[in-house]
Amino acid sequence: MYNPILVEVTRGPLVESIHRGAVAIARADGSLAFSLGDVNAPVYPRSSLKPIQALPLLESGAADAFTLSPEEIALACASHSGEPMHTSRVAAWLKKIGCNESDLACGPHAVRYEPVWMDMIRHGERPTRLHNNCSGKHTGFLTVCKHWNVAREDYEHHDHPIQRAVAKSLSELTDIKAEFPWGVDGCAAPNFALPLSAFALALARFATPESLPEHRAKAARRIFDAMVAHPELVAGTDRSDTILMRSCGGRVATKAGAEAYYAGIIPDAGLGIALKIDDGAGRAAETAFAAILDKLGLLGSDPEARALVRAPVLNTRGAVAGERRAGPALQNAQIETLAAASR
Amino acid sequence: MYNPILVEVTRGPLVESIHRGAVAIARADGSLAFSLGDVNAPVYPRSSLKPIQALPLLESGAADAFTLSPEEIALACASHSGEPMHTSRVAAWLKKIGCNESDLACGPHAVRYEPVWMDMIRHGERPTRLHNNCSGKHTGFLTVCKHWNVAREDYEHHDHPIQRAVAKSLSELTDIKAEFPWGVDGCAAPNFALPLSAFALALARFATPESLPEHRAKAARRIFDAMVAHPELVAGTDRSDTILMRSCGGRVATKAGAEAYYAGIIPDAGLGIALKIDDGAGRAAETAFAAILDKLGLLGSDPEARALVRAPVLNTRGAVAGERRAGPALQNAQIETLAAASR
Repeated sequence: MYNPILVEVTRGPLVESIHRGAVAIARADGSLAFSLGDVNAPVYPRSSLKPIQALPLLESGAADAFTLSPEEIALACASHSGEPMHTSRVAAWLKKIGCNESDLACGPHAVRYEPVWMDMIRHGERPTRLHNNCSGKHTGFLTVCKHWNVAREDYEHHDHPIQRAVAKSLSELTDIKAEFPWGVDGCAAPNFALPLSAFALALARFATPESLPEHRAKAARRIFDAMVAHPELVAGTDRSDTILMRSCGGRVATKAGAEAYYAGIIPDAGLGIALKIDDGAGRAAETAFAAILDKLGLLGSDPEARALVRAPVLNTRGAVAGERRAGPALQNAQIETLAAASR
Repeated sequence: MYNPILVEVTRGPLVESIHRGAVAIARADGSLAFSLGDVNAPVYPRSSLKPIQALPLLESGAADAFTLSPEEIALACASHSGEPMHTSRVAAWLKKIGCNESDLACGPHAVRYEPVWMDMIRHGERPTRLHNNCSGKHTGFLTVCKHWNVAREDYEHHDHPIQRAVAKSLSELTDIKAEFPWGVDGCAAPNFALPLSAFALALARFATPESLPEHRAKAARRIFDAMVAHPELVAGTDRSDTILMRSCGGRVATKAGAEAYYAGIIPDAGLGIALKIDDGAGRAAETAFAAILDKLGLLGSDPEARALVRAPVLNTRGAVAGERRAGPALQNAQIETLAAASR
């Protein structure tokens, strides 16, 4: 099956590059409010899985036992930029649970926010595991291990209790009983593949308390509230999740994933959104997702958010050479606005 | 028209991302030795145009008037990494023609080779226009302006004599009489769009002396020889063009372009190759192009070159999580080997 063109990049009079992809917008009853392309093939949500991966942290009681703040819960769902606001909080959280950086299973990588990265280079500082964009998620895993009093070595293995708990949550939210196909994520933790339609359903249930057992509904709400209260901790300065959550005024929790996945949770409407660009280009996922939020009537007028919907392509002298924008399939899509979609 | 999957990226048991695209391999008589996908839509070759953009430099007599070395001719065709071996030679060349950095129309951008970039940051050095990957091409344009004694201001404008000369060369090599659609490239120079089949024909003629007037055949051969003699100047340390030209042992001149274009010139067989990945992903263009050279029996056994054909996907701990490889359409393609293709 060929997916439609969700995003196109122009230069001069021509479309220079195109990005195909698929998107599912689901309701908690499993029906689709909207879809484009193949929403049935299994896809790794990558970091878009993080709000689900944080469920055991809340549901186990670990978050309360260690009196985690909303900021720490936001970091558990983060693909952060490695800025001091992120690394200092993760370091303090690790200390609070009696762990340290060497307990993290994720490897170090370059800091994403350039001014901080430049500063580190100037001062001869090397990135640590704290700088890994997933260090908050991993600290969340360690917090559950501590609370459960289970071995924290190998917590990133597919058969470790914390990873089984994540898989169980995902299974319950999607009604998928079979084992999920899985691969190793960039941070060494397992990532579970499932259809866009199924992940959109999981996110719609996440957004809909009455579709969930009470303890899960409470956990989901705390995660949503923490994400929209601290969008700068979920991503970072100038990052799309931070821009989109701010511009939507707290009505949507958004979460980007590697290889151009994007997820959204909309409690106001009881909707979940799952999107994947076929080719893995993050630039296209950002633009397609922003365009969908705009179609839903959720995206505000912040210039940074509008610039994701229609992004200028600049040359090295700063002149506009083209633009990145929603492709015809998405531009012409009829998506019911939030008011109409509301239950 | 949907283009076939030329490259796929796996993670665990699944294909996580795919890259569609098209490729044309042409002979100098205009026939296609091989093609996949839509080779008739106009596409910008971007920096893959550089060997053609260098023709006026040789044909005008400017290269001889300023006694340009093969190294300087290679730099005229380069998308270099901004390493000292590149910038020092471009600076010396500018001085030789009585120009300086401020005459370059391209803007500064970050140096691509990380160790050099890190060093510059440590020493508080800002990139200059010399570091622009196109500074050699622009110095080539300036050299022609000097030789012709025409205004060098606005040499990057579409209607300047040097740009008209480039368009004329491209028109003659493709038999396309109509004006090419054009856009502004990242370096501010015009870039001309044409079908992959037409650009492959231009490259095949470039590779075939008897298809060209004598002065052009000599210019084309000097450009080819300079590129394959100095692959490190055409790209840079660890770059795909440098790796591929070395591994093919001087039998192919290769030139990558932005937004996932790739071009090849093969005098041994009188063939030209033009490839474009629909979505603009350089990772896919490198792998697809390396796979094609391999199918043609040209790619050697250098580990760096083999790693372009099948590239491991690593996580942040350095473990293999998947791989990037030719997709089914390319894996199963029957491309006549070079021996069979030879005229």
